[in-house]
Amino acid sequence: MKKLSEAAVSQKLKTLEKWRIKEEKWIERRYRFKDYLEGIRFVNKLAEAAEEVNHHPFITIQYKLVIVELTSWSENGLTDLDFDVAIQYEKLYKEMV
Amino acid sequence: MKKLSEAAVSQKLKTLEKWRIKEEKWIERRYRFKDYLEGIRFVNKLAEAAEEVNHHPFITIQYKLVIVELTSWSENGLTDLDFDVAIQYEKLYKEMV
Repeated sequence: MKKLSEAAVSQKLKTLEKWRIKEEKWIERRYRFKDYLEGIRFVNKLAEAAEEVNHHPFITIQYKLVIVELTSWSENGLTDLDFDVAIQYEKLYKEMV
Repeated sequence: MKKLSEAAVSQKLKTLEKWRIKEEKWIERRYRFKDYLEGIRFVNKLAEAAEEVNHHPFITIQYKLVIVELTSWSENGLTDLDFDVAIQYEKLYKEMV
């Protein structure tokens, strides 16, 4: 996986409107849930998906808010993999709510 | 639940050696796991316990590190409940590792 240029990142973010760039090398999305355990079920889905591709987002659970952050440590920045899994997370979310 | 004094908090922390105070109104503990999904299983146990007593910690999952933060929003500080659940989390952790 190759680190993406700033222009490539901007381009990719156009189709992921709820994600935002954070401190240059992260993309972040905040997911809100109607109840706490629904958020926890989502975290479990993310974790399963993360383990499958060996790419693990940082996840913060603040009651009904689940914050997901992605980066590619090996490249010290963002790669196609971050965007591929972000798209996958959007699908998992849509299946739930 | 009544907000605890600084002295009471210090006293209670003596028996919770891995917990530390953070920004006056939080207590925090960092749990490390041998593998990612073990950490996720722990998060599920915390979530279940949290829902039972309707007191929800902030939880951050950074790969094999799970950071747990507790406060009592209603009191804008720490109460007995925070320490009661911290003790419970320690038991849940010891059952796992």
